[in-house]
Amino acid sequence: VRKFVRELITEWRRLELPVSKGTLVIAVSGGADSVSLLLATHDLVRRKKLGHRIVVAHFDHGLRGAESEADAEFVRGLAERLGLDIRMEKGNVRKRGNIEQEARNARYEFLSIVATAENAYGILTGHTINDQAETFLMNLIRGSGPDGLRAMPVVREIGKDGKLLIRPLMRWAKREDTERFCREQGLEFREDSMNCDRAFTRVRIRKEVLPLLGEFNPKIIETLAQTAGMLGRESEAGEKSIPIELSLAELNALDCLDLRNRLRSWIRSVRGDLRGLKLKHIEGIERLAKSKKSGRIAELPGGWQAVKRAGRLRLVQIKVEKRPPEN
Amino acid sequence: VRKFVRELITEWRRLELPVSKGTLVIAVSGGADSVSLLLATHDLVRRKKLGHRIVVAHFDHGLRGAESEADAEFVRGLAERLGLDIRMEKGNVRKRGNIEQEARNARYEFLSIVATAENAYGILTGHTINDQAETFLMNLIRGSGPDGLRAMPVVREIGKDGKLLIRPLMRWAKREDTERFCREQGLEFREDSMNCDRAFTRVRIRKEVLPLLGEFNPKIIETLAQTAGMLGRESEAGEKSIPIELSLAELNALDCLDLRNRLRSWIRSVRGDLRGLKLKHIEGIERLAKSKKSGRIAELPGGWQAVKRAGRLRLVQIKVEKRPPEN
Repeated sequence: VRKFVRELITEWRRLELPVSKGTLVIAVSGGADSVSLLLATHDLVRRKKLGHRIVVAHFDHGLRGAESEADAEFVRGLAERLGLDIRMEKGNVRKRGNIEQEARNARYEFLSIVATAENAYGILTGHTINDQAETFLMNLIRGSGPDGLRAMPVVREIGKDGKLLIRPLMRWAKREDTERFCREQGLEFREDSMNCDRAFTRVRIRKEVLPLLGEFNPKIIETLAQTAGMLGRESEAGEKSIPIELSLAELNALDCLDLRNRLRSWIRSVRGDLRGLKLKHIEGIERLAKSKKSGRIAELPGGWQAVKRAGRLRLVQIKVEKRPPEN
Repeated sequence: VRKFVRELITEWRRLELPVSKGTLVIAVSGGADSVSLLLATHDLVRRKKLGHRIVVAHFDHGLRGAESEADAEFVRGLAERLGLDIRMEKGNVRKRGNIEQEARNARYEFLSIVATAENAYGILTGHTINDQAETFLMNLIRGSGPDGLRAMPVVREIGKDGKLLIRPLMRWAKREDTERFCREQGLEFREDSMNCDRAFTRVRIRKEVLPLLGEFNPKIIETLAQTAGMLGRESEAGEKSIPIELSLAELNALDCLDLRNRLRSWIRSVRGDLRGLKLKHIEGIERLAKSKKSGRIAELPGGWQAVKRAGRLRLVQIKVEKRPPEN
């Protein structure tokens, strides 16, 4: 088994995602990131490490004419060779305003629709550490403030029916790792559509800014991604609203096993890990969810609390930090 | 009155610093930043907008031989022409390890000693918006995490006897403003000693990285400085320890007027402003400080609280923020 594939299943287990059944939609642009994700996931299914059905989804933003069509053909051929179902759509992103944002919105809308239609529980995308670092720098330069500097989460909910958007490469794979894995598999890949001239800022950040910063710190990609991660955690500390709240009504509709899995993946996605979490903690939250007499708060390790309010559960952390000396 | 001088007195008032008496130590390297600060402050004293005695302090890090001596002679001549007292010291910073850090520590130690010897209440330095932005980028590239990304405060305590370190240019003046003001005054300035080859990273950030980022955002200096400011506030929000705590013993040694001024400048330095602060709030903190029966908390505007604990007062904010959608 290739190192890339081993790393993927390790991350999958670390994220405590289901391994046995269900459908996964994999977003494949044709670039090295998404192609390597598809190949490695397919390999895990073939080796019975994962028991999922895979559906390939390709969205053609309609921004690059013949080149876009060639990408679509490439992805279709790849899915056929692997014997996988494929869903494709040609969008019509307007070539004005914030094109990157428009394209992203259209792509995620398509992916949500496919996930719902295929009854999938999650959508995988091929985001790498590089994407995390580039997004951080773009938002920093743009001046989007602390909110834009927080890390993209590895797992978050998407769409109205709470499908999971999962980025299983983002914490460990660099773009060069995905390219190397594709080459090892003897597979060509297309230039990622993010690389088109229109995403000018992102491409220049990738090709000019990051190499210059890399002269100061050869691990600049990892450093920026880690910084984004720390700002994410930083901002989630203190009593603030957390992106993913759980509805008690939704929880109480689940059977016991599903409920526990849901709670664990919720805590992991908000807190970043499951360190110190024991069954008694999960049971405490269950009591909170099920009983009107069990108070408002369940204690969790590391100063975290699950708090019940207005029919929803949220996680908060009361954290006391020292500020170090500065300049 | 020159715009630069008007901006300085405006900031002085905004910071609610004393205007009528006492001694100020001004750290002057001979560079445009510190020379412009000295000239403008001296102008304000001459015009009786400020009633302070000024002491010029120059620290020769002993890193650049004859050039350092020429800087010292330049500063001595400037102080003499302005009729100001001057304190100088030649340090002996070791030319190994983190030279910039060593030089800074030695410089601040010297400034603290001068402030104590001269019975000054504050030390002024010529830090500009550029320094804020450069420090932010250096710490970002170095990977120092959220703590290193927070803004340098405009006012903070320094040394054991609680002198104020005040950077009255840092929120509004760019380096080019200080250079322009020096030229307007017909005054040459020395190349700032921070520009010496040894502070290699900072100089390259100034001369290579910032100009490249400026191609994406012409206001990059301001943007980075604002981001640092927002991260500073961000990190101070939530229940966390605040850098400047007040000792009750110290407060109770002050007379009523001094106590109120101390509380206002404390709140301003921690919270960033005095918005909504009324006399009743100050009185609430006074009661907290003076009486053992007045509870543990005084409410302040904007969700802030002064909290008494273990003989010290600190400011905390319980703030609820929404997280916006990300990538």
